[in-house]
Amino acid sequence: MKLQNDLYLRALRREQTERTPVWLMRQAGRYLPEYRRVRAQAGDFMTLASTPEMACEVTIQPLERFPLDAAIIFSDILTIPDAMGLGLYFVQGEGPKFKKPITCEKQITDLPVPEAEDLQYVMDAISLTSRTLNGRVPLIGFSGSPWTLLTYMIENGGSKTYAKSKGFLYKTPELAHQLLNKLSQSIIKYLIGQIQSGASAVQIFDSWGGVLSPADFKHFSLQYMQQIIDGIKAAGFADTPIILFSKGANQSLTALSETGCHGLGVDWTININDAQQLTGGRVALQGNLDPATLYAPDEHINQAVKHVVDTYGNQPGHIFNLGHGMQPDMSPEKVGVLVDAVRQHSSKN
Amino acid sequence: MKLQNDLYLRALRREQTERTPVWLMRQAGRYLPEYRRVRAQAGDFMTLASTPEMACEVTIQPLERFPLDAAIIFSDILTIPDAMGLGLYFVQGEGPKFKKPITCEKQITDLPVPEAEDLQYVMDAISLTSRTLNGRVPLIGFSGSPWTLLTYMIENGGSKTYAKSKGFLYKTPELAHQLLNKLSQSIIKYLIGQIQSGASAVQIFDSWGGVLSPADFKHFSLQYMQQIIDGIKAAGFADTPIILFSKGANQSLTALSETGCHGLGVDWTININDAQQLTGGRVALQGNLDPATLYAPDEHINQAVKHVVDTYGNQPGHIFNLGHGMQPDMSPEKVGVLVDAVRQHSSKN
Repeated sequence: MKLQNDLYLRALRREQTERTPVWLMRQAGRYLPEYRRVRAQAGDFMTLASTPEMACEVTIQPLERFPLDAAIIFSDILTIPDAMGLGLYFVQGEGPKFKKPITCEKQITDLPVPEAEDLQYVMDAISLTSRTLNGRVPLIGFSGSPWTLLTYMIENGGSKTYAKSKGFLYKTPELAHQLLNKLSQSIIKYLIGQIQSGASAVQIFDSWGGVLSPADFKHFSLQYMQQIIDGIKAAGFADTPIILFSKGANQSLTALSETGCHGLGVDWTININDAQQLTGGRVALQGNLDPATLYAPDEHINQAVKHVVDTYGNQPGHIFNLGHGMQPDMSPEKVGVLVDAVRQHSSKN
Repeated sequence: MKLQNDLYLRALRREQTERTPVWLMRQAGRYLPEYRRVRAQAGDFMTLASTPEMACEVTIQPLERFPLDAAIIFSDILTIPDAMGLGLYFVQGEGPKFKKPITCEKQITDLPVPEAEDLQYVMDAISLTSRTLNGRVPLIGFSGSPWTLLTYMIENGGSKTYAKSKGFLYKTPELAHQLLNKLSQSIIKYLIGQIQSGASAVQIFDSWGGVLSPADFKHFSLQYMQQIIDGIKAAGFADTPIILFSKGANQSLTALSETGCHGLGVDWTININDAQQLTGGRVALQGNLDPATLYAPDEHINQAVKHVVDTYGNQPGHIFNLGHGMQPDMSPEKVGVLVDAVRQHSSKN
């Protein structure tokens, strides 16, 4: 399908673009009243995420409001552990939970590696959304990273210290590697299924990569994302861009840029020109505005956007984004200010 | 008073030491059964912290168990906002809270700048502990940083996004600077009082420095820590070492090392030799083992300690510590393993 707007994909290939493409992590979500209406109809989050028509509708909602350059399929990073049989559910006001979190060795050795068809509702949502978008903008598919999925499967709730997950790595490293391997194999199948269903690019969210030391990161997170990249390429999808986002792992940006991925997410705790230096032009960079900027007055947002665009400079390969996802208490009007500012400050003519 | 063990102070002056000194953030605390006994006697945390005899007792407890090279006065980072009239209290299982958090402009303009005497209980605890230690090891005093105190005063409870504090900075920057100035002035008086009461060094805990972008960090955190360093030196205490610890602000390590401080805390998300490069030998470095290592088997702890010691190498100026504080669910036995490993792997003979 011919894309009418391919800025995002061209930036990922580090081609010069007439302006910087922009999309926002969690751009479809609770900050939008039209999302909250569909969410209320669905009753619960999992019904919304697993009903293709509803997932398609909320995926496209932000594009109707703002001139964004990419859509990202509405789903959750924990669909794979759910398909493995852990039973994902959501409690109002709390994070995600599993009915059967990992608590013993046998559970890990018994865990199945789901096929893409075991997550057919995601494939259907992507096909439907891709057909509905009809080439308007690229559609991004995604998954959580093996390490990030492991933390949720082991902690089963929020953690400040990741005591259980890290204790698991340190006490039973072989078992941890077995679990990380199974997750990697599942993610390869899952992301290939998403590409075959119509995703133009796939992003791996390593939300908790930054809580590890650089040595542990390499051993327990990076190595498995590398496996996924190699697996997708070996299966014949080398042309589909893969973006890694290890939030907070700025000390590992160089290593991340050497994995053969096409783009890296960059949070706001590093100047984006420092990230450019560390990654040596090997990858496109996606970021890096502090999401809390959206709590600021319009002119502050405008200047902060300009600062990121100017700091990146005239090199190709920048995709504007926040350094983390949208929050429910943010205002849609502020997103409009941000998107306008990106278009204004990055226009090359 | 002549110190029997001055390894910690010599390392802060970047002198060669016969081995690497070691202390642990929150080394006096809930992980120790003897601490929990005193805490139970006290009834509540503030009684414990504000009764000099009790604060002295728990400060010295970890030294009775482990051959640590420094003591840190048992207190809280929020004593200054409490002395400003906000009314600090603790709810079991939650973090610290204020009875009167900052909610309007008038509160800020009306806030007093406390004198050291307004925190006499801290001064008394330090004098008593210093006399009791009788030169055994140096005693460290401390304060929260202006930015970190601001976040607690504005959020009044945990936050993942610091939406209120950052919104406050962006919407009313002049008011934010007024508050940060008052906090800096208070901290200067507070830390000078601690030095005069017997603290051999003072540490500023900027626990939330890392949630800011590098530009915001410079503007809203670093600038005020600089003011404190200059203020303490100008008052005639240039020989007393000052240590800054901005957790997670690794992109600002170079700027931090240029403030005239003597030491920097380094969390575990950066290799300590990279931190050495970024700080160019201007300061001592304190860190940087992932505290979660204490959940690992003994041999893993031993190897992880060796890795940090070896990575720092033969340069002077290393103080071994965790990259964050001890947690209540950690085991005292593991601390013994850690301290032994530091002594073993860093011995120069």
